[in-house]
Amino acid sequence: MMDMFNWQNASQQAAVLVEKKLADLLGERDQDFSLLFEGMRYSALAGGKRIRPFLTLSIAQLFGGDEEPALSFAAAVEMVHTYSLIHDDLPCMDDDDYRRGRLTNHKVYGEAEAVLAGDALLTMAFEVIANAPADADCRIRAVHALSSAAGARGMVGGQMMDMKAERETPSLATLRRLHDCKTGALIRASAALGCIAAGVQDEDILASCHTYANGIGRAFQIVDDILDVYGDSRLLGKNTGQDAKDGKTTYLSYMTKQEAMQEAVTLTEQAKDALRPYRGSEMLLSFADALLNREK
Amino acid sequence: MMDMFNWQNASQQAAVLVEKKLADLLGERDQDFSLLFEGMRYSALAGGKRIRPFLTLSIAQLFGGDEEPALSFAAAVEMVHTYSLIHDDLPCMDDDDYRRGRLTNHKVYGEAEAVLAGDALLTMAFEVIANAPADADCRIRAVHALSSAAGARGMVGGQMMDMKAERETPSLATLRRLHDCKTGALIRASAALGCIAAGVQDEDILASCHTYANGIGRAFQIVDDILDVYGDSRLLGKNTGQDAKDGKTTYLSYMTKQEAMQEAVTLTEQAKDALRPYRGSEMLLSFADALLNREK
Repeated sequence: MMDMFNWQNASQQAAVLVEKKLADLLGERDQDFSLLFEGMRYSALAGGKRIRPFLTLSIAQLFGGDEEPALSFAAAVEMVHTYSLIHDDLPCMDDDDYRRGRLTNHKVYGEAEAVLAGDALLTMAFEVIANAPADADCRIRAVHALSSAAGARGMVGGQMMDMKAERETPSLATLRRLHDCKTGALIRASAALGCIAAGVQDEDILASCHTYANGIGRAFQIVDDILDVYGDSRLLGKNTGQDAKDGKTTYLSYMTKQEAMQEAVTLTEQAKDALRPYRGSEMLLSFADALLNREK
Repeated sequence: MMDMFNWQNASQQAAVLVEKKLADLLGERDQDFSLLFEGMRYSALAGGKRIRPFLTLSIAQLFGGDEEPALSFAAAVEMVHTYSLIHDDLPCMDDDDYRRGRLTNHKVYGEAEAVLAGDALLTMAFEVIANAPADADCRIRAVHALSSAAGARGMVGGQMMDMKAERETPSLATLRRLHDCKTGALIRASAALGCIAAGVQDEDILASCHTYANGIGRAFQIVDDILDVYGDSRLLGKNTGQDAKDGKTTYLSYMTKQEAMQEAVTLTEQAKDALRPYRGSEMLLSFADALLNREK
Protein backbone atom coordinates (compact mmCIF):
# COMPACT_ATOMS: atom_id res chain seq x y z
CA MET A 1 0.00 0.00 0.00
CA MET A 2 1.43 3.32 -1.04
CA ASP A 3 1.19 6.56 0.94
CA MET A 4 -2.19 8.00 0.00
CA PHE A 5 -1.50 11.55 1.11
CA ASN A 6 1.99 12.49 0.12
CA TRP A 7 2.82 12.15 -3.55
CA GLN A 8 6.57 12.32 -2.94
CA ASN A 9 6.42 9.29 -0.66
CA ALA A 10 3.96 7.51 -2.91
CA SER A 11 5.96 8.05 -6.09
CA GLN A 12 9.13 6.92 -4.37
CA GLN A 13 7.35 3.80 -3.14
CA ALA A 14 6.01 3.18 -6.63
CA ALA A 15 9.49 3.51 -8.10
CA VAL A 16 10.91 1.03 -5.60
CA LEU A 17 8.09 -1.44 -6.27
CA VAL A 18 8.33 -1.24 -10.04
CA GLU A 19 12.12 -1.44 -10.04
CA LYS A 20 12.00 -4.59 -7.96
CA LYS A 21 9.39 -6.04 -10.31
CA LEU A 22 11.44 -5.13 -13.38
CA ALA A 23 14.57 -6.63 -11.84
CA ASP A 24 12.64 -9.86 -11.17
CA LEU A 25 11.19 -10.01 -14.67
CA LEU A 26 14.52 -9.24 -16.31
CA GLY A 27 16.61 -11.64 -14.27
CA GLU A 28 17.93 -14.42 -16.50
CA ARG A 29 20.35 -17.24 -15.77
CA ASP A 30 20.39 -18.80 -19.22
CA GLN A 31 23.84 -18.10 -20.70
CA ASP A 32 22.52 -17.91 -24.27
CA PHE A 33 20.25 -15.00 -23.43
CA SER A 34 22.30 -13.30 -20.75
CA LEU A 35 23.77 -10.50 -22.87
CA LEU A 36 20.35 -9.57 -24.27
CA PHE A 37 18.85 -9.43 -20.79
CA GLU A 38 21.81 -7.43 -19.54
CA GLY A 39 21.07 -4.80 -22.19
CA MET A 40 17.39 -4.78 -21.29
CA ARG A 41 18.20 -4.33 -17.60
CA TYR A 42 20.75 -1.62 -18.33
CA SER A 43 18.03 0.67 -19.66
CA ALA A 44 15.04 -0.54 -17.64
CA LEU A 45 16.85 -0.12 -14.34
CA ALA A 46 18.47 3.22 -15.16
CA GLY A 47 16.26 5.25 -12.87
CA GLY A 48 14.03 7.96 -14.22
CA LYS A 49 10.93 9.55 -12.78
CA ARG A 50 8.78 6.41 -13.15
CA ILE A 51 5.77 8.66 -13.72
CA ARG A 52 3.87 6.06 -15.75
CA PRO A 53 4.06 3.19 -13.25
CA PHE A 54 3.27 5.65 -10.47
CA LEU A 55 0.08 6.64 -12.30
CA THR A 56 -0.91 3.02 -12.86
CA LEU A 57 -0.28 2.05 -9.24
CA SER A 58 -1.87 5.11 -7.64
CA ILE A 59 -4.98 5.04 -9.81
CA ALA A 60 -5.40 1.32 -9.21
CA GLN A 61 -5.15 2.01 -5.48
CA LEU A 62 -7.57 4.93 -5.71
CA PHE A 63 -10.23 2.62 -7.11
CA GLY A 64 -9.55 -0.27 -4.79
CA GLY A 65 -7.45 -2.50 -7.01
CA ASP A 66 -5.06 -5.14 -5.72
CA GLU A 67 -1.43 -4.24 -5.94
CA GLU A 68 -0.25 -7.37 -7.77
CA PRO A 69 -2.00 -7.00 -11.14
CA ALA A 70 -1.43 -3.24 -11.04
CA LEU A 71 2.27 -3.83 -10.50
CA SER A 72 2.44 -6.15 -13.53
CA PHE A 73 0.71 -3.55 -15.66
CA ALA A 74 2.97 -0.82 -14.27
CA ALA A 75 6.06 -2.85 -15.17
CA ALA A 76 4.66 -3.46 -18.65
CA VAL A 77 4.06 0.22 -19.32
CA GLU A 78 7.55 1.07 -18.08
CA MET A 79 9.03 -1.58 -20.39
CA VAL A 80 7.27 0.08 -23.31
CA HIS A 81 8.54 3.49 -22.21
CA THR A 82 12.08 2.10 -21.87
CA TYR A 83 12.05 0.45 -25.29
CA SER A 84 10.93 3.75 -26.83
CA LEU A 85 13.88 5.56 -25.25
CA ILE A 86 16.36 2.94 -26.48
CA HIS A 87 15.08 3.19 -30.05
CA ASP A 88 14.81 7.01 -29.89
CA ASP A 89 18.45 7.26 -28.92
CA LEU A 90 19.70 5.17 -31.88
CA PRO A 91 22.05 6.84 -34.37
CA CYS A 92 19.38 6.75 -37.08
CA MET A 93 16.92 8.49 -34.76
CA ASP A 94 18.08 11.16 -32.28
CA ASP A 95 21.64 9.83 -32.15
CA ASP A 96 22.14 10.47 -28.45
CA ASP A 97 25.24 9.26 -26.63
CA TYR A 98 23.98 10.02 -23.15
CA ARG A 99 20.72 9.73 -21.26
CA ARG A 100 20.41 10.77 -17.63
CA GLY A 101 24.18 11.07 -17.45
CA ARG A 102 24.85 7.48 -18.55
CA LEU A 103 25.88 6.17 -21.94
CA THR A 104 22.91 5.21 -24.07
CA ASN A 105 22.17 1.54 -24.70
CA HIS A 106 23.72 1.35 -28.16
CA LYS A 107 26.90 3.09 -26.98
CA VAL A 108 27.41 0.32 -24.44
CA TYR A 109 26.08 -2.76 -26.24
CA GLY A 110 26.14 -1.84 -29.92
CA GLU A 111 23.47 -0.69 -32.31
CA ALA A 112 22.05 -4.06 -33.36
CA GLU A 113 21.96 -5.17 -29.73
CA ALA A 114 20.09 -1.98 -28.78
CA VAL A 115 17.49 -2.53 -31.50
CA LEU A 116 16.97 -6.06 -30.15
CA ALA A 117 16.87 -4.99 -26.50
CA GLY A 118 14.11 -2.55 -27.43
CA ASP A 119 12.23 -5.16 -29.44
CA ALA A 120 12.49 -7.62 -26.57
CA LEU A 121 11.25 -5.13 -23.96
CA LEU A 122 8.26 -4.19 -26.11
CA THR A 123 7.39 -7.85 -26.64
CA MET A 124 7.87 -8.72 -23.00
CA ALA A 125 5.47 -5.98 -21.91
CA PHE A 126 2.64 -8.01 -23.43
CA GLU A 127 3.93 -11.26 -21.97
CA VAL A 128 3.97 -9.65 -18.53
CA ILE A 129 0.35 -8.57 -18.93
CA ALA A 130 -0.63 -12.03 -20.17
CA ASN A 131 0.96 -13.53 -17.05
CA ALA A 132 -0.53 -11.01 -14.61
CA PRO A 133 -2.61 -12.35 -11.70
CA ALA A 134 -5.94 -11.05 -13.00
CA ASP A 135 -8.86 -12.54 -14.87
CA ALA A 136 -8.63 -12.94 -18.64
CA ASP A 137 -11.01 -10.08 -19.37
CA CYS A 138 -8.93 -7.69 -17.28
CA ARG A 139 -5.70 -8.80 -18.93
CA ILE A 140 -7.03 -8.52 -22.47
CA ARG A 141 -8.36 -5.02 -21.74
CA ALA A 142 -4.86 -4.15 -20.58
CA VAL A 143 -3.30 -5.56 -23.76
CA HIS A 144 -5.72 -3.50 -25.79
CA ALA A 145 -5.08 -0.30 -23.86
CA LEU A 146 -1.31 -0.64 -24.03
CA SER A 147 -1.03 -1.79 -27.66
CA SER A 148 -3.34 0.87 -29.04
CA ALA A 149 -1.54 3.59 -27.07
CA ALA A 150 1.95 2.45 -27.98
CA GLY A 151 1.40 1.72 -31.66
CA ALA A 152 1.03 3.36 -35.03
CA ARG A 153 -1.87 5.61 -34.02
CA GLY A 154 -0.23 6.39 -30.67
CA MET A 155 3.36 6.63 -29.52
CA VAL A 156 5.06 5.30 -32.65
CA GLY A 157 2.81 7.45 -34.85
CA GLY A 158 3.74 10.46 -32.73
CA GLN A 159 7.42 9.70 -33.11
CA MET A 160 6.94 9.61 -36.87
CA MET A 161 5.12 12.97 -36.71
CA ASP A 162 8.01 14.34 -34.67
CA MET A 163 10.49 13.36 -37.38
CA LYS A 164 8.33 15.06 -39.98
CA ALA A 165 8.14 18.16 -37.77
CA GLU A 166 11.91 18.44 -38.02
CA ARG A 167 11.64 18.69 -41.81
CA GLU A 168 8.60 20.95 -42.06
CA THR A 169 7.36 23.31 -39.36
CA PRO A 170 4.19 21.90 -37.77
CA SER A 171 1.15 24.06 -37.10
CA LEU A 172 0.18 24.53 -33.44
CA ALA A 173 -2.63 21.99 -33.93
CA THR A 174 -0.18 19.48 -35.38
CA LEU A 175 2.27 20.16 -32.56
CA ARG A 176 -0.43 19.45 -29.99
CA ARG A 177 -1.43 16.24 -31.73
CA LEU A 178 2.19 15.17 -32.03
CA HIS A 179 2.65 15.42 -28.27
CA ASP A 180 -0.74 13.83 -27.59
CA CYS A 181 0.52 10.81 -29.54
CA LYS A 182 4.21 10.72 -28.79
CA THR A 183 4.05 11.11 -25.03
CA GLY A 184 0.37 11.63 -24.17
CA ALA A 185 -0.90 8.26 -25.37
CA LEU A 186 1.31 6.25 -23.02
CA ILE A 187 0.53 8.53 -20.07
CA ARG A 188 -3.20 8.10 -20.70
CA ALA A 189 -2.67 4.35 -21.04
CA SER A 190 -0.87 4.31 -17.68
CA ALA A 191 -3.93 5.77 -16.03
CA ALA A 192 -6.25 3.46 -17.96
CA LEU A 193 -4.18 0.46 -16.87
CA GLY A 194 -4.67 1.52 -13.26
CA CYS A 195 -8.44 1.52 -13.79
CA ILE A 196 -8.31 -1.82 -15.58
CA ALA A 197 -6.22 -3.38 -12.81
CA ALA A 198 -8.86 -2.23 -10.33
CA GLY A 199 -11.61 -3.76 -12.47
CA VAL A 200 -13.20 -0.38 -13.16
CA GLN A 201 -15.87 -0.69 -15.85
CA ASP A 202 -17.71 2.56 -15.08
CA GLU A 203 -17.43 4.82 -18.11
CA ASP A 204 -17.50 7.98 -15.98
CA ILE A 205 -14.51 6.90 -13.94
CA LEU A 206 -12.62 5.86 -17.07
CA ALA A 207 -13.38 9.24 -18.64
CA SER A 208 -12.27 11.10 -15.50
CA CYS A 209 -8.95 9.26 -15.48
CA HIS A 210 -8.55 9.94 -19.18
CA THR A 211 -9.10 13.65 -18.62
CA TYR A 212 -6.69 13.68 -15.70
CA ALA A 213 -3.90 11.90 -17.58
CA ASN A 214 -4.53 13.94 -20.69
CA GLY A 215 -4.30 17.20 -18.75
CA ILE A 216 -1.15 16.41 -16.84
CA GLY A 217 0.46 14.96 -19.97
CA ARG A 218 -0.19 18.09 -22.00
CA ALA A 219 0.82 20.42 -19.18
CA PHE A 220 4.00 18.40 -18.69
CA GLN A 221 5.03 18.98 -22.29
CA ILE A 222 4.32 22.70 -22.15
CA VAL A 223 6.35 23.05 -18.96
CA ASP A 224 9.13 21.08 -20.67
CA ASP A 225 9.22 23.62 -23.48
CA ILE A 226 9.23 26.53 -21.03
CA LEU A 227 12.00 25.04 -18.90
CA ASP A 228 14.14 24.48 -21.97
CA VAL A 229 14.20 28.26 -22.49
CA TYR A 230 13.77 29.71 -19.01
CA GLY A 231 14.85 26.89 -16.71
CA ASP A 232 17.95 26.63 -14.57
CA SER A 233 20.42 24.35 -16.33
CA ARG A 234 21.97 23.32 -13.01
CA LEU A 235 18.61 22.17 -11.66
CA LEU A 236 17.66 20.54 -14.99
CA GLY A 237 20.96 18.72 -15.26
CA LYS A 238 21.16 19.59 -18.94
CA ASN A 239 21.81 22.62 -21.10
CA THR A 240 18.91 24.98 -21.72
CA GLY A 241 18.24 26.41 -25.17
CA GLN A 242 18.59 23.00 -26.77
CA ASP A 243 15.26 23.19 -28.66
CA ALA A 244 16.25 26.50 -30.27
CA LYS A 245 19.66 25.10 -31.14
CA ASP A 246 17.99 22.09 -32.76
CA GLY A 247 15.58 24.37 -34.63
CA LYS A 248 12.67 22.62 -32.93
CA THR A 249 9.15 23.96 -33.06
CA THR A 250 7.76 24.21 -29.50
CA TYR A 251 4.78 25.79 -27.79
CA LEU A 252 6.90 28.91 -27.42
CA SER A 253 7.10 29.15 -31.21
CA TYR A 254 3.40 30.03 -31.06
CA MET A 255 2.87 31.80 -27.75
CA THR A 256 4.56 33.80 -25.03
CA LYS A 257 5.86 32.23 -21.85
CA GLN A 258 2.88 33.70 -19.99
CA GLU A 259 0.35 32.29 -22.45
CA ALA A 260 2.03 28.90 -22.37
CA MET A 261 2.06 28.87 -18.59
CA GLN A 262 -1.58 29.89 -18.51
CA GLU A 263 -2.44 26.98 -20.77
CA ALA A 264 -0.51 24.60 -18.54
CA VAL A 265 -2.34 25.95 -15.49
CA THR A 266 -5.72 25.49 -17.18
CA LEU A 267 -4.87 21.93 -18.23
CA THR A 268 -3.72 21.11 -14.71
CA GLU A 269 -6.93 22.53 -13.25
CA GLN A 270 -9.01 20.45 -15.68
CA ALA A 271 -7.00 17.40 -14.71
CA LYS A 272 -7.55 18.03 -11.01
CA ASP A 273 -11.25 18.77 -11.47
CA ALA A 274 -11.68 15.39 -13.14
CA LEU A 275 -10.32 13.43 -10.18
CA ARG A 276 -11.40 15.70 -7.30
CA PRO A 277 -14.79 13.97 -6.80
CA TYR A 278 -13.13 10.68 -5.92
CA ARG A 279 -12.33 10.17 -2.26
CA GLY A 280 -8.60 9.65 -1.77
CA SER A 281 -7.56 11.54 -4.87
CA GLU A 282 -5.77 14.35 -2.97
CA MET A 283 -2.37 12.82 -3.60
CA LEU A 284 -2.93 12.75 -7.36
CA LEU A 285 -4.15 16.36 -7.25
CA SER A 286 -0.95 17.52 -5.59
CA PHE A 287 1.04 15.42 -8.02
CA ALA A 288 -0.56 17.36 -10.89
CA ASP A 289 0.47 20.62 -9.20
CA ALA A 290 3.97 19.33 -8.66
CA LEU A 291 4.40 18.52 -12.35
CA LEU A 292 3.17 22.01 -13.20
CA ASN A 293 5.48 23.78 -10.77
CA ARG A 294 8.55 21.63 -11.24
CA GLU A 295 11.87 23.25 -11.95
CA LYS A 296 13.49 20.14 -13.41
CA MET B 1 -13.14 -22.73 -45.77
CA MET B 2 -9.81 -23.73 -47.23
CA ASP B 3 -9.16 -26.78 -49.40
CA MET B 4 -8.67 -29.63 -46.95
CA PHE B 5 -6.94 -31.99 -49.34
CA ASN B 6 -4.55 -30.04 -51.47
CA TRP B 7 -1.93 -28.03 -49.61
CA GLN B 8 -1.06 -25.93 -52.68
CA ASN B 9 -4.65 -24.73 -52.96
CA ALA B 10 -4.99 -24.32 -49.23
CA SER B 11 -1.81 -22.35 -48.81
CA GLN B 12 -2.71 -20.11 -51.71
CA GLN B 13 -6.14 -19.52 -50.18
CA ALA B 14 -4.52 -18.79 -46.82
CA ALA B 15 -2.18 -16.27 -48.45
CA VAL B 16 -5.08 -14.50 -50.15
CA LEU B 17 -7.08 -14.39 -46.92
CA VAL B 18 -4.25 -13.09 -44.79
CA GLU B 19 -3.17 -10.51 -47.35
CA LYS B 20 -6.69 -9.14 -47.52
CA LYS B 21 -6.81 -9.04 -43.72
CA LEU B 22 -3.43 -7.29 -43.51
CA ALA B 23 -4.48 -4.77 -46.17
CA ASP B 24 -7.64 -4.03 -44.15
CA LEU B 25 -5.77 -3.67 -40.87
CA LEU B 26 -3.06 -1.49 -42.42
CA GLY B 27 -5.36 0.80 -44.36
CA GLU B 28 -5.20 4.31 -42.92
CA ARG B 29 -6.72 7.54 -44.12
CA ASP B 30 -5.34 9.81 -41.44
CA GLN B 31 -2.77 12.06 -43.13
CA ASP B 32 -0.59 12.30 -40.04
CA PHE B 33 -0.02 8.55 -39.97
CA SER B 34 -0.12 7.79 -43.68
CA LEU B 35 3.63 7.54 -44.30
CA LEU B 36 4.11 5.18 -41.36
CA PHE B 37 1.30 2.92 -42.54
CA GLU B 38 2.66 3.03 -46.08
CA GLY B 39 5.97 1.66 -44.80
CA MET B 40 4.18 -1.02 -42.80
CA ARG B 41 2.15 -2.08 -45.85
CA TYR B 42 5.22 -2.05 -48.08
CA SER B 43 6.75 -4.90 -46.14
CA ALA B 44 3.62 -6.68 -44.90
CA LEU B 45 2.16 -6.93 -48.40
CA ALA B 46 5.40 -7.89 -50.15
CA GLY B 47 4.38 -11.49 -50.74
CA GLY B 48 6.39 -14.34 -49.28
CA LYS B 49 5.41 -17.91 -48.54
CA ARG B 50 2.97 -17.00 -45.74
CA ILE B 51 3.86 -20.29 -44.06
CA ARG B 52 3.01 -19.03 -40.58
CA PRO B 53 -0.53 -17.78 -41.30
CA PHE B 54 -1.13 -20.92 -43.34
CA LEU B 55 -0.24 -23.03 -40.30
CA THR B 56 -2.49 -21.00 -38.02
CA LEU B 57 -5.44 -21.18 -40.40
CA SER B 58 -5.09 -24.82 -41.35
CA ILE B 59 -4.59 -26.04 -37.80
CA ALA B 60 -7.55 -23.97 -36.61
CA GLN B 61 -9.62 -25.54 -39.37
CA LEU B 62 -8.36 -29.03 -38.54
CA PHE B 63 -9.70 -28.68 -35.01
CA GLY B 64 -12.97 -27.05 -35.99
CA GLY B 65 -12.18 -23.42 -35.27
CA ASP B 66 -14.03 -20.50 -36.85
CA GLU B 67 -12.13 -18.70 -39.54
CA GLU B 68 -12.50 -15.17 -38.15
CA PRO B 69 -10.47 -15.41 -34.94
CA ALA B 70 -7.95 -17.66 -36.68
CA LEU B 71 -7.52 -15.05 -39.39
CA SER B 72 -6.85 -12.33 -36.81
CA PHE B 73 -4.25 -14.50 -35.13
CA ALA B 74 -2.74 -15.39 -38.53
CA ALA B 75 -2.44 -11.71 -39.43
CA ALA B 76 -0.85 -11.02 -36.04
CA VAL B 77 1.80 -13.69 -36.45
CA GLU B 78 2.59 -12.45 -39.95
CA MET B 79 2.95 -8.89 -38.61
CA VAL B 80 5.51 -10.18 -36.11
CA HIS B 81 7.34 -12.07 -38.86
CA THR B 82 7.33 -8.96 -41.06
CA TYR B 83 8.66 -6.69 -38.32
CA SER B 84 11.49 -9.15 -37.69
CA LEU B 85 12.48 -9.02 -41.37
CA ILE B 86 12.45 -5.21 -41.42
CA HIS B 87 14.68 -4.99 -38.35
CA ASP B 88 16.94 -7.84 -39.58
CA ASP B 89 17.58 -5.98 -42.83
CA LEU B 90 18.70 -2.76 -41.10
CA PRO B 91 22.25 -1.52 -41.74
CA CYS B 92 23.22 -2.26 -38.14
CA MET B 93 21.96 -5.84 -38.47
CA ASP B 94 22.31 -7.77 -41.76
CA ASP B 95 22.49 -4.60 -43.87
CA ASP B 96 20.48 -5.98 -46.80
CA ASP B 97 19.44 -3.78 -49.69
CA TYR B 98 17.08 -6.29 -51.26
CA ARG B 99 14.55 -8.82 -50.07
CA ARG B 100 12.61 -10.96 -52.52
CA GLY B 101 13.86 -8.82 -55.38
CA ARG B 102 12.54 -5.56 -53.91
CA LEU B 103 14.38 -2.85 -52.05
CA THR B 104 14.30 -3.39 -48.29
CA ASN B 105 12.14 -1.13 -46.14
CA HIS B 106 14.93 1.18 -44.96
CA LYS B 107 16.23 1.63 -48.51
CA VAL B 108 12.84 3.01 -49.54
CA TYR B 109 11.69 4.87 -46.42
CA GLY B 110 14.86 5.53 -44.44
CA GLU B 111 16.42 3.84 -41.48
CA ALA B 112 14.53 5.59 -38.68
CA GLU B 113 11.25 5.04 -40.51
CA ALA B 114 12.05 1.33 -40.88
CA VAL B 115 12.77 0.97 -37.17
CA LEU B 116 9.41 2.59 -36.45
CA ALA B 117 7.51 0.55 -39.06
CA GLY B 118 8.85 -2.59 -37.39
CA ASP B 119 7.98 -1.31 -33.91
CA ALA B 120 4.48 -0.43 -35.07
CA LEU B 121 3.88 -3.83 -36.69
CA LEU B 122 5.03 -5.67 -33.57
CA THR B 123 2.77 -3.53 -31.39
CA MET B 124 -0.19 -3.86 -33.73
CA ALA B 125 0.06 -7.65 -33.67
CA PHE B 126 -1.08 -7.56 -30.05
CA GLU B 127 -3.78 -5.00 -30.77
CA VAL B 128 -5.13 -7.25 -33.52
CA ILE B 129 -5.30 -10.18 -31.11
CA ALA B 130 -6.97 -8.02 -28.47
CA ASN B 131 -9.62 -7.02 -31.04
CA ALA B 132 -10.17 -10.54 -32.41
CA PRO B 133 -13.71 -11.94 -32.32
CA ALA B 134 -13.02 -14.54 -29.64
CA ASP B 135 -13.59 -14.76 -25.91
CA ALA B 136 -11.16 -13.06 -23.56
CA ASP B 137 -9.58 -16.29 -22.42
CA CYS B 138 -8.82 -17.32 -25.99
CA ARG B 139 -7.36 -13.91 -26.81
CA ILE B 140 -5.14 -13.77 -23.76
CA ARG B 141 -3.84 -17.27 -24.48
CA ALA B 142 -2.96 -16.00 -27.95
CA VAL B 143 -1.16 -12.95 -26.55
CA HIS B 144 0.81 -15.23 -24.28
CA ALA B 145 1.73 -17.68 -27.05
CA LEU B 146 2.83 -14.95 -29.43
CA SER B 147 4.70 -12.75 -26.96
CA SER B 148 6.64 -15.59 -25.37
CA ALA B 149 7.61 -16.98 -28.80
CA ALA B 150 8.60 -13.63 -30.28
CA GLY B 151 10.52 -12.25 -27.32
CA ALA B 152 13.80 -12.45 -25.49
CA ARG B 153 13.63 -16.20 -24.89
CA GLY B 154 12.32 -16.84 -28.40
CA MET B 155 12.80 -15.08 -31.71
CA VAL B 156 14.68 -12.01 -30.45
CA GLY B 157 16.88 -14.18 -28.26
CA GLY B 158 17.63 -16.37 -31.27
CA GLN B 159 18.58 -13.33 -33.32
CA MET B 160 20.98 -12.32 -30.60
CA MET B 161 22.47 -15.86 -30.57
CA ASP B 162 22.83 -15.61 -34.34
CA MET B 163 24.87 -12.43 -34.02
CA LYS B 164 27.08 -14.12 -31.46
CA ALA B 165 27.47 -17.11 -33.79
CA GLU B 166 29.05 -14.78 -36.35
CA ARG B 167 31.75 -13.85 -33.86
CA GLU B 168 32.43 -17.27 -32.35
CA THR B 169 31.66 -20.61 -34.02
CA PRO B 170 28.66 -22.21 -32.32
CA SER B 171 28.61 -25.89 -31.37
CA LEU B 172 26.05 -28.07 -33.16
CA ALA B 173 23.88 -27.97 -30.04
CA THR B 174 24.04 -24.18 -29.97
CA LEU B 175 23.28 -24.02 -33.68
CA ARG B 176 20.18 -26.14 -33.16
CA ARG B 177 19.02 -24.00 -30.29
CA LEU B 178 19.69 -20.82 -32.23
CA HIS B 179 17.36 -21.98 -35.01
CA ASP B 180 14.80 -23.31 -32.55
CA CYS B 181 14.62 -19.77 -31.15
CA LYS B 182 15.21 -17.57 -34.16
CA THR B 183 12.76 -19.23 -36.55
CA GLY B 184 11.34 -22.25 -34.73
CA ALA B 185 9.62 -20.35 -31.93
CA LEU B 186 7.38 -18.35 -34.25
CA ILE B 187 6.54 -21.42 -36.35
CA ARG B 188 5.54 -23.30 -33.21
CA ALA B 189 3.53 -20.28 -32.09
CA SER B 190 1.72 -20.22 -35.44
CA ALA B 191 0.54 -23.77 -34.85
CA ALA B 192 -0.34 -23.02 -31.23
CA LEU B 193 -2.37 -20.00 -32.33
CA GLY B 194 -4.37 -22.27 -34.64
CA CYS B 195 -5.18 -24.51 -31.67
CA ILE B 196 -6.03 -21.54 -29.49
CA ALA B 197 -8.31 -20.06 -32.16
CA ALA B 198 -10.14 -23.38 -32.28
CA GLY B 199 -10.51 -23.38 -28.50
CA VAL B 200 -8.34 -26.48 -28.10
CA GLN B 201 -7.53 -27.08 -24.44
CA ASP B 202 -6.57 -30.75 -24.77
CA GLU B 203 -2.90 -31.08 -23.81
CA ASP B 204 -2.37 -34.03 -26.18
CA ILE B 205 -3.55 -32.05 -29.19
CA LEU B 206 -1.43 -29.07 -28.18
CA ALA B 207 1.59 -31.36 -27.79
CA SER B 208 0.95 -32.95 -31.20
CA CYS B 209 0.81 -29.57 -32.90
CA HIS B 210 3.96 -28.52 -31.06
CA THR B 211 5.77 -31.62 -32.31
CA TYR B 212 4.50 -31.08 -35.84
CA ALA B 213 5.57 -27.44 -35.99
CA ASN B 214 8.85 -28.17 -34.28
CA GLY B 215 9.66 -30.93 -36.77
CA ILE B 216 8.81 -28.99 -39.91
CA GLY B 217 10.57 -25.90 -38.58
CA ARG B 218 13.80 -27.77 -37.88
CA ALA B 219 13.64 -29.68 -41.18
CA PHE B 220 13.01 -26.41 -43.01
CA GLN B 221 16.23 -24.93 -41.68
CA ILE B 222 18.30 -27.99 -42.54
CA VAL B 223 16.93 -28.01 -46.09
CA ASP B 224 17.74 -24.29 -46.28
CA ASP B 225 21.35 -25.02 -45.43
CA ILE B 226 21.52 -27.84 -47.99
CA LEU B 227 19.94 -25.75 -50.75
CA ASP B 228 22.42 -22.96 -50.11
CA VAL B 229 25.21 -25.34 -51.12
CA TYR B 230 23.59 -27.78 -53.51
CA GLY B 231 20.50 -25.95 -54.76
CA ASP B 232 19.82 -24.50 -58.18
CA SER B 233 20.37 -20.75 -58.00
CA ARG B 234 17.87 -20.18 -60.83
CA LEU B 235 15.13 -21.99 -58.92
CA LEU B 236 16.13 -20.37 -55.62
CA GLY B 237 16.18 -16.91 -57.16
CA LYS B 238 19.38 -16.12 -55.26
CA ASN B 239 23.03 -17.06 -55.38
CA THR B 240 24.06 -20.32 -53.78
CA GLY B 241 27.18 -20.57 -51.63
CA GLN B 242 26.21 -17.47 -49.70
CA ASP B 243 26.61 -19.09 -46.27
CA ALA B 244 30.17 -20.19 -47.07
CA LYS B 245 30.97 -16.74 -48.42
CA ASP B 246 29.63 -15.19 -45.20
CA GLY B 247 31.64 -17.68 -43.13
CA LYS B 248 28.41 -18.90 -41.56
CA THR B 249 28.24 -22.05 -39.47
CA THR B 250 25.48 -24.31 -40.82
CA TYR B 251 24.36 -27.91 -40.36
CA LEU B 252 26.77 -28.79 -43.15
CA SER B 253 29.63 -27.53 -40.99
CA TYR B 254 28.92 -30.56 -38.80
CA MET B 255 27.59 -33.27 -41.11
CA THR B 256 27.51 -34.48 -44.71
CA LYS B 257 24.68 -33.64 -47.06
CA GLN B 258 23.39 -37.21 -46.66
CA GLU B 259 23.43 -37.02 -42.87
CA ALA B 260 21.72 -33.64 -42.90
CA MET B 261 19.05 -34.86 -45.30
CA GLN B 262 18.50 -37.95 -43.17
CA GLU B 263 17.94 -35.74 -40.15
CA ALA B 264 15.47 -33.61 -42.09
CA VAL B 265 13.62 -36.76 -43.19
CA THR B 266 13.45 -38.05 -39.62
CA LEU B 267 12.17 -34.70 -38.33
CA THR B 268 9.55 -34.58 -41.07
CA GLU B 269 8.40 -38.12 -40.23
CA GLN B 270 8.13 -37.21 -36.55
CA ALA B 271 6.11 -34.15 -37.52
CA LYS B 272 3.76 -36.20 -39.69
CA ASP B 273 3.38 -38.94 -37.08
CA ALA B 274 2.24 -36.33 -34.57
CA LEU B 275 -0.66 -35.11 -36.72
CA ARG B 276 -1.55 -38.35 -38.54
CA PRO B 277 -4.07 -39.52 -35.91
CA TYR B 278 -6.28 -36.49 -36.51
CA ARG B 279 -8.90 -36.85 -39.19
CA GLY B 280 -8.43 -34.29 -41.94
CA SER B 281 -4.70 -33.84 -41.35
CA GLU B 282 -3.64 -35.26 -44.75
CA MET B 283 -3.12 -31.81 -46.19
CA LEU B 284 -0.71 -30.85 -43.40
CA LEU B 285 1.14 -34.14 -43.85
CA SER B 286 1.74 -33.46 -47.54
CA PHE B 287 2.72 -29.89 -46.65
CA ALA B 288 5.46 -31.29 -44.40
CA ASP B 289 6.70 -33.43 -47.30
CA ALA B 290 6.61 -30.47 -49.64
CA LEU B 291 8.78 -28.39 -47.32
CA LEU B 292 11.24 -31.29 -47.12
CA ASN B 293 11.41 -31.84 -50.87
CA ARG B 294 11.33 -28.22 -51.98
CA GLU B 295 13.90 -26.97 -54.44
CA LYS B 296 13.41 -23.31 -53.58
